[in-house]
This record gives sequence, C-alpha cells and structure tokens, in this order.
Amino acid sequence: MSKGQQTRERIIAQAAPLFNQHGYEGCSLKEIMAATGLEKGGIYRHFESKEELAAEAFDYAWNFASSKRRIHLETIPNHADRIKQHIANFVTRTGLPGGCPLLNTAIDADNGNPVLRDRVRKALRNWQAMLRSTLEEGIQAGTIRPEIDVTAVANHIIGGLEGGMLISRIERNDQALHQTLEHLDEYIETHIRKSQSVIKAKSRRKN
Amino acid sequence: MSKGQQTRERIIAQAAPLFNQHGYEGCSLKEIMAATGLEKGGIYRHFESKEELAAEAFDYAWNFASSKRRIHLETIPNHADRIKQHIANFVTRTGLPGGCPLLNTAIDADNGNPVLRDRVRKALRNWQAMLRSTLEEGIQAGTIRPEIDVTAVANHIIGGLEGGMLISRIERNDQALHQTLEHLDEYIETHIRKSQSVIKAKSRRKN
Repeated sequence: MSKGQQTRERIIAQAAPLFNQHGYEGCSLKEIMAATGLEKGGIYRHFESKEELAAEAFDYAWNFASSKRRIHLETIPNHADRIKQHIANFVTRTGLPGGCPLLNTAIDADNGNPVLRDRVRKALRNWQAMLRSTLEEGIQAGTIRPEIDVTAVANHIIGGLEGGMLISRIERNDQALHQTLEHLDEYIETHIRKSQSVIKAKSRRKN
Repeated sequence: MSKGQQTRERIIAQAAPLFNQHGYEGCSLKEIMAATGLEKGGIYRHFESKEELAAEAFDYAWNFASSKRRIHLETIPNHADRIKQHIANFVTRTGLPGGCPLLNTAIDADNGNPVLRDRVRKALRNWQAMLRSTLEEGIQAGTIRPEIDVTAVANHIIGGLEGGMLISRIERNDQALHQTLEHLDEYIETHIRKSQSVIKAKSRRKN
C-alpha cells in the first residue's frame, strides 16, 4: 500500500466513528481535521468531496459492524441456531461508537445524498442476502421450514432489530433490544426452525 | 389568538414538513425563510433558537401523524381489533411529507440536541402508554390475554412498525411495511387476542 493509500485508509477509519455518531450533516470538517491532525487540503487530497469521504466512512463502519455480527456463525452447523447467534451478536456486540450504521445513516442519506444512499441500500441488500441464503441452505438441509417466505423472514429479523435499537436509543437503555432478542428467539423456534422430531417422523414414514 | 401567536403557529406548521424531510441539521434557515416568506428576524422574534423551532415543529409533525393513526379507533369496541386498526393506520395513512417523525428525528436528536431529544422521548412514551392502556383495558374486558407483558408487546409493535418503515425508506417501496402489517396481524391473533371461544368455554365451565 502506498503512503497516500495508507493516509486515505487512516482518514476513513478516523472519520467513521464521527460520521456514525453525528451523521452526515452533523459531522463537521473541523471535527475530522481534529481527529486526523490534517488540514483541509490534506484531507481533500484523498477525497473528491465530503460526500465521498462519508460514503467510504459508512462502508468502513458497516464492515466493522457486520464482522462483529458474524462472529462464531461459521462454527454453528444448524441454520436456525446460526440465525439466533447472529441476532444475539447484533444485540450484545457493539461496533463503532454511535450504534448501528444502517439506522444512523439511512434517514440522514435519504434526502439529497445519492452516493451515501446507494451505500446504505447495498448494505441492507447484503444483510438481506446473508439471511436469505442461510434460510435457503437450511431449507435444503432440512433444518428450516420449507414453507417460509425467506424475504419476509429476513425483513422481519432486520426490521425487528433496527426497530428495537431505535427504541433503545431513544430510551438510552437496552430493554427494548433485549425484548426483541427474546421475541425473535421465540419466533425462530415457533415459525422458522424445522424440528428434528418432524424430520425423524418423516424418515420413519418413509421406512 | 393574538396576531403574534398566529404567526408563530404558521411558522411551526410551515417548518414542520421541512424538518421532517431534511432533519434538524439538514434543514436550513434559508429554507424556512423561503417557506414562510419571513426574514430571519421575523422568525426569531417568535423563537429563541433553531432548536426551539425544531422542537415545536417536531411536536406539530408528531401530533399530525398520531391523529392519523388514531382514526376510527374509538368506534371499535374490541381491543385486539382496535390495535390492528392502529397498525393498519400507521402503514396506510401518510402524515406530513418525510414519513414518521419519530424515526426521522430520533437519531438526529440523539447527539447534542437535548430539547429535541426530550420531545422525541415524550412522543415515544405517549405512544407506548396509548398501546399499554388499550392492552390493559382489553385484559380487564376479557378481549386480550391476561398473561402478556404489555410493555414488551407495545415495544414489539412500535419497533416492528419503525423497523419496517426503515427498510421501506431505504428500498423506496412499501413491501417491508406491508410484511410488517401481515406479521403483526398474525402476532395479534396468535399471541394477544383472547378468543371468544376461550371466554365462552370458561363461562361454560363456571355454569
């Protein structure tokens, strides 16, 4: 990596928690200058605009949060348990200061900031695709009920988590987020998981 | 109402959709001047600060949205049906341009805007209290299951609606919001409503 590239990466990493906490409009160049120790020219040598820096900072914050939410997932063979672990990761593991980048940036980016809006939409689509593919693999493997609408289930999980986080942010405590965790755990057991007894009963019927 | 009071009310009503669409930081005094036809001095004669105007504008937007979401409620005697109508109102009736004021303002107000944050918290608490009291009345009347945790149910409904709206905002279509409506309708039927057959069975047992 060239020295210029290294500086660019460092600016993104240092600006990411600022944008995540204060939003696109609320995060000033002054703050970014203070955090990076660079002058305006030193920052804008690496980025065409504040919009470009904010978009890169969002991707950085999102990748950081996503990696936390994927911890332990690949070691869990059962797909319902894997989704439950993902939900528990969302609720209990913190990313960058400021909370979930999707929640923080979606509304901020919705008016007149198409570059940032595009990144937010991509982040949501990646999250939906990750949940859908886990559910579809589970349907193939016989661990997830085949009759579910995987798109609706993915949105229910994402919407539940983000809505719970919104209430927790307003109340400044984790109660709503933990209520969401309990609700989604029960929802997965009663609506999503294909229980082993059903699989056994079916294979018995085949014999 | 004095002429000064009338002008103040008019400024609030005209600023409300601007703050609701562009956020506290994103809404400029210039826009408010253009919408109201007033100079800076003409606006700040009625408000101590942008923060005060934004707080009043939030209350205006929230009251407008809340009244839409309460349409027809008082005519529905069954409490489970009343909550279903409230959810349907949220999904199908639009308030001011820009969508739900709670979703729009919560994140925006969370950093360094205590007056606005206080109004958002009050709005959430009123919404929670309205749902809780409907559920508690229903428990008394025998239309709602007595074993539910009314606080958790209220948060599940609010979080589900706000999370579904967040996804719909990012995707710019109503799919997630309508999935939320379907999910919450089923949830109310399976977890919240005390079915008439249960009531009948109990009264039969008493006889």
